[in-house]
Amino acid sequence: MSQFRQKRIEWFKEKNKNRARLLIGCADQPGIVSSVSTFLFEQGANIVESSQYTTDPEGGMFFLRIEFEIDNLESREGEIEEAFTQIAERFSMDWRISYAYHIKKMAIFVSKEEHCLLELLWEWQAGELMADISLVISNHEVMRDTVESLQIPYYYTPVTKETKQEVEQRHLDLLEEQEIDLIVLARYMQILSPNFVSKHPNQIINIHHSFLPAFVGAKPYDRAYERGVKLIGATSHYVTDDLDEGPIIEQDVERVNHKDKADDLKRIGRHIERSVLARAVKWHLQDRVIVHGNKTIVFE
Amino acid sequence: MSQFRQKRIEWFKEKNKNRARLLIGCADQPGIVSSVSTFLFEQGANIVESSQYTTDPEGGMFFLRIEFEIDNLESREGEIEEAFTQIAERFSMDWRISYAYHIKKMAIFVSKEEHCLLELLWEWQAGELMADISLVISNHEVMRDTVESLQIPYYYTPVTKETKQEVEQRHLDLLEEQEIDLIVLARYMQILSPNFVSKHPNQIINIHHSFLPAFVGAKPYDRAYERGVKLIGATSHYVTDDLDEGPIIEQDVERVNHKDKADDLKRIGRHIERSVLARAVKWHLQDRVIVHGNKTIVFE
Amino acid sequence: MSQFRQKRIEWFKEKNKNRARLLIGCADQPGIVSSVSTFLFEQGANIVESSQYTTDPEGGMFFLRIEFEIDNLESREGEIEEAFTQIAERFSMDWRISYAYHIKKMAIFVSKEEHCLLELLWEWQAGELMADISLVISNHEVMRDTVESLQIPYYYTPVTKETKQEVEQRHLDLLEEQEIDLIVLARYMQILSPNFVSKHPNQIINIHHSFLPAFVGAKPYDRAYERGVKLIGATSHYVTDDLDEGPIIEQDVERVNHKDKADDLKRIGRHIERSVLARAVKWHLQDRVIVHGNKTIVFE
Amino acid sequence: MSQFRQKRIEWFKEKNKNRARLLIGCADQPGIVSSVSTFLFEQGANIVESSQYTTDPEGGMFFLRIEFEIDNLESREGEIEEAFTQIAERFSMDWRISYAYHIKKMAIFVSKEEHCLLELLWEWQAGELMADISLVISNHEVMRDTVESLQIPYYYTPVTKETKQEVEQRHLDLLEEQEIDLIVLARYMQILSPNFVSKHPNQIINIHHSFLPAFVGAKPYDRAYERGVKLIGATSHYVTDDLDEGPIIEQDVERVNHKDKADDLKRIGRHIERSVLARAVKWHLQDRVIVHGNKTIVFE
Repeated sequence: MSQFRQKRIEWFKEKNKNRARLLIGCADQPGIVSSVSTFLFEQGANIVESSQYTTDPEGGMFFLRIEFEIDNLESREGEIEEAFTQIAERFSMDWRISYAYHIKKMAIFVSKEEHCLLELLWEWQAGELMADISLVISNHEVMRDTVESLQIPYYYTPVTKETKQEVEQRHLDLLEEQEIDLIVLARYMQILSPNFVSKHPNQIINIHHSFLPAFVGAKPYDRAYERGVKLIGATSHYVTDDLDEGPIIEQDVERVNHKDKADDLKRIGRHIERSVLARAVKWHLQDRVIVHGNKTIVFE
Repeated sequence: MSQFRQKRIEWFKEKNKNRARLLIGCADQPGIVSSVSTFLFEQGANIVESSQYTTDPEGGMFFLRIEFEIDNLESREGEIEEAFTQIAERFSMDWRISYAYHIKKMAIFVSKEEHCLLELLWEWQAGELMADISLVISNHEVMRDTVESLQIPYYYTPVTKETKQEVEQRHLDLLEEQEIDLIVLARYMQILSPNFVSKHPNQIINIHHSFLPAFVGAKPYDRAYERGVKLIGATSHYVTDDLDEGPIIEQDVERVNHKDKADDLKRIGRHIERSVLARAVKWHLQDRVIVHGNKTIVFE
Repeated sequence: MSQFRQKRIEWFKEKNKNRARLLIGCADQPGIVSSVSTFLFEQGANIVESSQYTTDPEGGMFFLRIEFEIDNLESREGEIEEAFTQIAERFSMDWRISYAYHIKKMAIFVSKEEHCLLELLWEWQAGELMADISLVISNHEVMRDTVESLQIPYYYTPVTKETKQEVEQRHLDLLEEQEIDLIVLARYMQILSPNFVSKHPNQIINIHHSFLPAFVGAKPYDRAYERGVKLIGATSHYVTDDLDEGPIIEQDVERVNHKDKADDLKRIGRHIERSVLARAVKWHLQDRVIVHGNKTIVFE
Repeated sequence: MSQFRQKRIEWFKEKNKNRARLLIGCADQPGIVSSVSTFLFEQGANIVESSQYTTDPEGGMFFLRIEFEIDNLESREGEIEEAFTQIAERFSMDWRISYAYHIKKMAIFVSKEEHCLLELLWEWQAGELMADISLVISNHEVMRDTVESLQIPYYYTPVTKETKQEVEQRHLDLLEEQEIDLIVLARYMQILSPNFVSKHPNQIINIHHSFLPAFVGAKPYDRAYERGVKLIGATSHYVTDDLDEGPIIEQDVERVNHKDKADDLKRIGRHIERSVLARAVKWHLQDRVIVHGNKTIVFE
């Protein structure tokens, strides 16, 4: 790995030393918070942030995210997880501990439009996105220089109808080799196959250039222009097999008016897209997004 | 007419004395503004506000709205319109002069939800909506006291499948008798027939409780909740035969999150609906909205 | 008490039966959440919502708000509070339990501008503000009919320089007699004396018609117009002895432009003021606002 | 000049061929629009966009911006201006024609914070800012590589108390040599002397990192944090001798809450600053901003 990227990651690790997030989902029932917080207290944890949500106070699902610090956490991971298993079993919890110093490995897919990629790279350099951007994959060459100047590997993999399946397999191999945790589609204009999607559940974040569910599918700005809407938007969501139907993480809009042509909508939309995608990626990296059914709980 | 309403209208007339708006649409061509502004200058007009828009500088449509004042305008209406006909013919204009002191007559249709009606009544009392609210029609009795306390006639016309056609005819008769210029559907939960709509082209404003074209049709908040959107919206539009497909006048949104149930969305949405509808009605009353195809030009 | 108000309050009580909010502030230290949640578990509480905040993970202040339900809570208040005292003492907590079925008694002060009062009355009728609006006090008569039509007592107390002190004493007496919990200044254009303020710490909410700290003091819209700002705002805050310097609860803004005169700013501002004040009052009534120094923590 | 910049500018010139903006300010009086539009018609102009504003319909100031195209405009500049002088004299107009193909020369001043500069460079590459970025001046070296990679000259001029005057003179010389039309302070943390400012009236755009007039002066985010505001903002304005008191061009805000520390405000603020500054610079380059007294008219 290059020195620049390496340094970045070392810095992220240092900043997140001893820090982890406990994520829990289970049927709501008395005593959960009491048990979990007593457990963390006994482990010597310092709770940094805690958020919880019950879908329905009368018999719904309960979700909890606790960010905490424990001295020498790295050497105690196994012991803590084992100890927690007892509690988890008692409440039939779906749970995991995400160690913040295990920096998530992220792949970015991009086509020709650069604004979303540039925003992600910028936020990464500014320390806002604490990930290891392990590689950028594109069906075009345009962004190579920018990406490589940050010493991030750039894979140019052009796609045709004939090679689509083969290229996708190459992508899957790359992602597996690199042990990628998160795939970000930063205006990648190729549809992923169900096979690809099924291998990365709730690990692929897309930015759609409309306020979903308005303008599902192709050319949303042209259709927004045709419809004469007075606001345009962007939506970041997890990718599922149903095009543009996955769980929504974040959305935003900007005001437009009759003077704005389709090209103006595209230009204005770029500003919305890049900030909406960056927020969604940041929240995912911080384990703030929980998928429940086809919706997300975002512990901002 | 009651004294309160009468006084209101007298005040609106006084405030708009000598004031009119010239509205023009025609093929873009050299010399239009020159001719029109020279004409107004020669008529002694004082131009208060002027807005124009060309759909396409290369051979598009040209739209112009000029708000002006002319001394003793009421007595000169015929003369001015006749004189303008020459210019209008030269440029094949679609045009009209809207005299601001001819206070528009407005009917409000409402069902059980009161927030949009209340907002309109409030803005009317505050002098923001310079209309004669000539009547309120409802398929429920709930708003009678509020409406009648302002001395506005309230027509309770319950609707069943069997009586729908007959009731609509009664509405049409009422609107004709009262010479209504604008019909506002302030959360009126009945679908108008094509016959009704065709009699009032670009004269019926509806508020739809979603960010169109998302959630066209019934129960938009429930569907927004199901979809897990992060923003909810409202849309005011002119009514056409295609449900929720008419020209959009105004839209707005508010942020929501995973904690908000469908009922919370409805509650938050009420705030958006009432302000979006009130803005659209105000702009219409001020002749700021021009319908072009299925879109609006709003000279805010 | 009148029947209408009485019914409203009975309904609020019924909706909040068995519901309370535990509010805690203390030095951050290990074991708080564990102790508190174990306590609530042992009392048979069903936790509806829980929010916490630490000003600084390294030795700051810790704040907690837990909304919960306990069967037959009304009859168990004393017992529960006594039991909690032990925990509170161990952690040197500043704490209270606010029982949601003890409907807060609220007084509204208003001058001539009616929009904020109307919004509060409206939200109250809609069930959004679960308070007993026990009285409205005004130095003008204009709102009497509206207020009395809802069977809320209206006190007209004109103020002159000479009578100011005497009138304020009458207000204090009224508030004491009526056991008022919250005073809302809904565009009340009189400055309260330090004596008055000191008797109601963090119990007086004001709406200031600017985006504080811009335009502290009189005539903020005129000064905003003079300065040529491109956004105007409103701020709701607790009243302290320093004019417009108390802890801010909520703020919002709207876009304006060069065409907007001071009167337009006032008109646009009314929409911001009423929603900002209504949100602040709602949060206060739900015990979501904690004052810490000169700032607020709002557990939205 | 380098090839990259040269190509960019050639492209801007080509896109703006034959295009100009006529800008007029004068006492409001009958016949202005008639005369001006007749003049443009006779010159064979195609009007692309026209905006006007009267400060007060009763005897105020009148401002007009007309964007137009005339064939072979470059060769006819002198002739047209001479012909227009007659009209200008009749109405005592303050006027100018800004030829869009005369690409404005822009200097950017920056210190250590890079986000505003990056945004400007990005928008420039995307074709949104049609200027010749002729040079970047900084009291730090950090941005050299980024700037020079776009073949824009980078001047590193460190400043100390002793050298301040001398350095400023060097800047003035550079700006004069390069015939700079617009100076953008993209988070340049040095105060300009009255001498410097007076040489570039309404030609220096600054970004202030607060919602002016709140938090005039140093460390606005720290002070916003201390005050506990619920929204933070940024303001772009023309620089005058009164610190942070010049005519405001654009402002915007973002929501924050009690969890956001001063550092979070800075981070969130960067997003506001960069977009607010970019919009102001774009409007200035398109001659959409007219300074009137200490305010701006922005013909968006």
